[in-house]
Amino acid sequence: MISVGIVGGTGYTGVELLRILLRHPNAEVKVLTSRTENGRRVDDMFPSLRGHTDLCYSDLNIEELKQCDVVFFATPHGVAMKHAEELVAANTKVIDLAADFRLQDLAQFEKWYGLDHACPELLKDSVYGLSELNREKIQKASVIGNPGCYPTTVQLGLAPVLKAEGLVKPESIIIDAKSGVSGAGRKASLGMIYSENADNFKAYGVAGHRHHPEIVEALENISGQKGVFNEILFVPHLVPMIRGMLSTIYIELTDAGASADLQSIYEQFYANEQFVDVMPAGSSPETRTVRGANQLRIAICKPQPKKLVILVAQDNLVKGAAGQAVQNMNLMFSFAENAGLQGIGLLP
Amino acid sequence: MISVGIVGGTGYTGVELLRILLRHPNAEVKVLTSRTENGRRVDDMFPSLRGHTDLCYSDLNIEELKQCDVVFFATPHGVAMKHAEELVAANTKVIDLAADFRLQDLAQFEKWYGLDHACPELLKDSVYGLSELNREKIQKASVIGNPGCYPTTVQLGLAPVLKAEGLVKPESIIIDAKSGVSGAGRKASLGMIYSENADNFKAYGVAGHRHHPEIVEALENISGQKGVFNEILFVPHLVPMIRGMLSTIYIELTDAGASADLQSIYEQFYANEQFVDVMPAGSSPETRTVRGANQLRIAICKPQPKKLVILVAQDNLVKGAAGQAVQNMNLMFSFAENAGLQGIGLLP
Amino acid sequence: MISVGIVGGTGYTGVELLRILLRHPNAEVKVLTSRTENGRRVDDMFPSLRGHTDLCYSDLNIEELKQCDVVFFATPHGVAMKHAEELVAANTKVIDLAADFRLQDLAQFEKWYGLDHACPELLKDSVYGLSELNREKIQKASVIGNPGCYPTTVQLGLAPVLKAEGLVKPESIIIDAKSGVSGAGRKASLGMIYSENADNFKAYGVAGHRHHPEIVEALENISGQKGVFNEILFVPHLVPMIRGMLSTIYIELTDAGASADLQSIYEQFYANEQFVDVMPAGSSPETRTVRGANQLRIAICKPQPKKLVILVAQDNLVKGAAGQAVQNMNLMFSFAENAGLQGIGLLP
Amino acid sequence: MISVGIVGGTGYTGVELLRILLRHPNAEVKVLTSRTENGRRVDDMFPSLRGHTDLCYSDLNIEELKQCDVVFFATPHGVAMKHAEELVAANTKVIDLAADFRLQDLAQFEKWYGLDHACPELLKDSVYGLSELNREKIQKASVIGNPGCYPTTVQLGLAPVLKAEGLVKPESIIIDAKSGVSGAGRKASLGMIYSENADNFKAYGVAGHRHHPEIVEALENISGQKGVFNEILFVPHLVPMIRGMLSTIYIELTDAGASADLQSIYEQFYANEQFVDVMPAGSSPETRTVRGANQLRIAICKPQPKKLVILVAQDNLVKGAAGQAVQNMNLMFSFAENAGLQGIGLLP
Repeated sequence: MISVGIVGGTGYTGVELLRILLRHPNAEVKVLTSRTENGRRVDDMFPSLRGHTDLCYSDLNIEELKQCDVVFFATPHGVAMKHAEELVAANTKVIDLAADFRLQDLAQFEKWYGLDHACPELLKDSVYGLSELNREKIQKASVIGNPGCYPTTVQLGLAPVLKAEGLVKPESIIIDAKSGVSGAGRKASLGMIYSENADNFKAYGVAGHRHHPEIVEALENISGQKGVFNEILFVPHLVPMIRGMLSTIYIELTDAGASADLQSIYEQFYANEQFVDVMPAGSSPETRTVRGANQLRIAICKPQPKKLVILVAQDNLVKGAAGQAVQNMNLMFSFAENAGLQGIGLLP
Repeated sequence: MISVGIVGGTGYTGVELLRILLRHPNAEVKVLTSRTENGRRVDDMFPSLRGHTDLCYSDLNIEELKQCDVVFFATPHGVAMKHAEELVAANTKVIDLAADFRLQDLAQFEKWYGLDHACPELLKDSVYGLSELNREKIQKASVIGNPGCYPTTVQLGLAPVLKAEGLVKPESIIIDAKSGVSGAGRKASLGMIYSENADNFKAYGVAGHRHHPEIVEALENISGQKGVFNEILFVPHLVPMIRGMLSTIYIELTDAGASADLQSIYEQFYANEQFVDVMPAGSSPETRTVRGANQLRIAICKPQPKKLVILVAQDNLVKGAAGQAVQNMNLMFSFAENAGLQGIGLLP
Repeated sequence: MISVGIVGGTGYTGVELLRILLRHPNAEVKVLTSRTENGRRVDDMFPSLRGHTDLCYSDLNIEELKQCDVVFFATPHGVAMKHAEELVAANTKVIDLAADFRLQDLAQFEKWYGLDHACPELLKDSVYGLSELNREKIQKASVIGNPGCYPTTVQLGLAPVLKAEGLVKPESIIIDAKSGVSGAGRKASLGMIYSENADNFKAYGVAGHRHHPEIVEALENISGQKGVFNEILFVPHLVPMIRGMLSTIYIELTDAGASADLQSIYEQFYANEQFVDVMPAGSSPETRTVRGANQLRIAICKPQPKKLVILVAQDNLVKGAAGQAVQNMNLMFSFAENAGLQGIGLLP
Repeated sequence: MISVGIVGGTGYTGVELLRILLRHPNAEVKVLTSRTENGRRVDDMFPSLRGHTDLCYSDLNIEELKQCDVVFFATPHGVAMKHAEELVAANTKVIDLAADFRLQDLAQFEKWYGLDHACPELLKDSVYGLSELNREKIQKASVIGNPGCYPTTVQLGLAPVLKAEGLVKPESIIIDAKSGVSGAGRKASLGMIYSENADNFKAYGVAGHRHHPEIVEALENISGQKGVFNEILFVPHLVPMIRGMLSTIYIELTDAGASADLQSIYEQFYANEQFVDVMPAGSSPETRTVRGANQLRIAICKPQPKKLVILVAQDNLVKGAAGQAVQNMNLMFSFAENAGLQGIGLLP
């Protein structure tokens, strides 16, 4: 059993980490911090946890965190980078669910998050935690930047055709993404209240979104091609549902791509991955099939001979956040990769 | 006051026609038919109408319908074309909310709807009822094919850049469309029940959808260009909301298009249209702003120098169906175009 | 045409007043105030109003308000009472949608709202604006306390059996009430965000709710019986829907009540009321049948010989707030009582 | 490991049984039947199960079912009673999630379900499967009638005050119950489609509901008092959410009840029950806190000195159906009572 700390346990990724970790066979949550709820029982704030834990929130105490084997940061951007060096020095591993360790390009980080990076050297040694694509590096990492929810769908949706050579025109990528409202977190904000979001649909961040540079950098790393993804389009939308994310990705095929057996390429690429499900040709992945599960489903379709549509569904809070974070923890500590992550999606 | 008949008054477009027409200053609904509800008061089926009408359903009786000045068909595909010739001969105008008079290409009609056309000659004389784009023809028409909901958003969203010459690459069009569940009608079907659709998001019809040929034909007519739209992509999605539709349209700009003032082009194109609202640059139209209103809102954005994103929102049952049908009726009878259509969207 | 002012135009009752009044044949909104949005176009905040008004928010200026024939206060509790005397002195009528003029019992007002009343004398002259029950007084009033949403359902649901003598046991009343989320207003509050309310159901205010004393006082006035309603139960619940309210009211019948034709009593009581609909025996009023309409539907049922269940549905923002306020305005200015209020509910 | 059969695996209780049993440490599902889907993979119908099972539907074959240690019937009413005797004779235990073994009163069964009972003798030997209240009998039972969802909340909500003597007036009970839409099952029915249920609230079955006689019989058994519950009121309502049930129960207290420490009585009554959670005084149980969990939460409140309000929340598909069925299986086979049932509710 390893001991776990969670910094920032009052948001949705925090309570989702608890839902998973309180049932994890190899981990025990020892520390749970909150700036505002010091001393309060966590099951008083989240009664779904009643009967499952006696944990109370505490103030962030770096000495207590150093006693943990791993610390998750389920905090706003900019918190993890302030504490990561001290934790790593104490041999405590760090998994940040915010953006501090996602972007290697510091200029982009500063542009999109409005923050100077507090530990650029450690950033260089950190590993981008897309479990399926960076498994070996994650196993050896001390600091993980857990991917954004949208970028997870885009990378896993595109990796099979980007890793193969010459099948697609990378500059043609258009990502029309849709997320449930929990993706915006748990904040008292007028734009997030029920009556503003129910029975409504809209795009947001059309002119630019923080996940665009993360996607560009990640696709460059996957494909080994620099500079060809800068002009891809990424347009997120807000769906009146709590959890769930679907990305519809459009990409033009080369002649080679048009004649390739893409369904087989996808199936083979993920043949050994238990958390990535390539559905049969003609399928349409529904977000509800992964509700609460650390699962991502992909289906591809070629409605025109030289145009590919890739549909990617996940639960934004699980494979898109807390679930993948635990999957990374499992890799870092050589646990079974699915430890604590075998729950089946809640349908209906 | 003209007299109006509605054939098929038990579906959602039927009850929406009633909601509008029972408050219309120049029209009175005299006949309301249903195959299954003969004799039943309509306000027994739809209690929202209690206090507003004493109408009862009757069996379809062509002689009664001939007494009407205009007959709306809010029926499944294939019904209007069986009765249109007889009605037109009796000088009764016909507005079909189904697909019988949408496609001039009979091969496409038969392919997608599985029906031989019953009156191909009358089809040639019929007019496609996209009010803003075909206003003059509609005014003189005897038979109107009321547009599909998705095609309405696509045509009004693209007309300004397709009517102008050389601004866009027409073959690059991608339409990622999202609809509320009422778009699927009022049918007892497992796929439509609440617990299968709430808190869920999915694409459907990815490999092909009936509105694709309608969109292609309509864009050819708008642009005057044949053959360039065959390979456009159209991918509809289902949103867990009752009403509302948002189409996100992607199109590549030519050099001329990249340097044009597209915001002005859109604003001028619709300067005199009260039902089409070009929002300020940077806006994102929300479907709830048109809930219940005969209104369509457009916003455009250029996230990359040569790529345009067009966002188009409407209520699928109003501007996408019953509202536009009444707008067409107003044109055909020289009423004020907004008669009966001045209601403000229900927000929240 | 009368001129209208609205104080507090950024909340849901404010925008609902605008939706109704911008289409009212006898009224024109001249002044619209907001503490925070001075100078902003109202259709920038609520794009549903685009094309319908050029109004901008202004700071509250009492001299401008005095120029109006009537001023609606769609503000938090405690605002209207600060300005009412000055307005009345200038011959401007006041309709408060908050609680300042609902309770004649000052001790209860101070207990539940935490405020000293600013104008107790004017309060005595004010009229409680339950339109159907206080019509004559409303016609002559200068200041109206517009009823709370829950109390409206309770009063109209119980009036027929309380006005008749000896049919029911008043002390046995239990009100199990359910409201859509818009009833809580438009506020940035954690408890109101989408992901906390969707796919969820709960009671709130079980131990006590501000509408309890309002209900007690109102039922005393209706029945002419003091002291018998103090121990009635009122338990509100929150429904994951935007608009709509259903109160399920339980009451024990006396022997006389058990043998009376209650359905007839209800139908006769409301025979001349266009906004109160007594449904046929065996009906169940659905909130969606009144969505957006100034309508309240009642059905009664006697599942046991001496127990009556009364079901009352309304749109909390219309008959429960803004619609009833306009109905009161119509009464005060001798307009047709349904002027501006003839819209049909939006179903589906 | 025991072998399990599920008859009727295409409904919501069927797929919920699979979600639980496919992760159960002591049970393996061997047979899964469907009248309509013979030969189809279950994960083709419910893609949430992809990666978790290779089961296919088969026709109901009684010989195959006899090989199972236990058979769950997740079927319409009337199916289990046709096969139960043969299964019991083969030493296979039967758990019926429908109503065949819920009511000992045959007249009531025939009145409410319209069926003659096929095995009245076996019915007498069957046990009503309210796990917490009938634990010892369940452990020895061959046939279990799994309780209805509403009756589960009512019994567990009232048991502490009914088991104690003289605290309440049993004839005063009023149950105002609210259920998510999944409680109506998975059927193609007009009344269940999304656009008829979203953003809506209504009562149903006000004049009478099948769960009324089940509640009456169960409360008689709990309290040992016959005849005092016949006139209690039970009014169910439909909430626009997928899962979740809240019953608000009103009951009058005797003088003894009014002076008792009811909070303590509840806490002590359930002190050793892991699936029944008595919340602190002043709490309001939200259905989302039990989403997907085999958990029932109770809170009590005394808004008037002699009136008690009991709030009871559960997931209608888990503690209200499939979860309690597995809990009963665990009891029957002497497994840990929480085997397979330790999942934490999905919040948000």
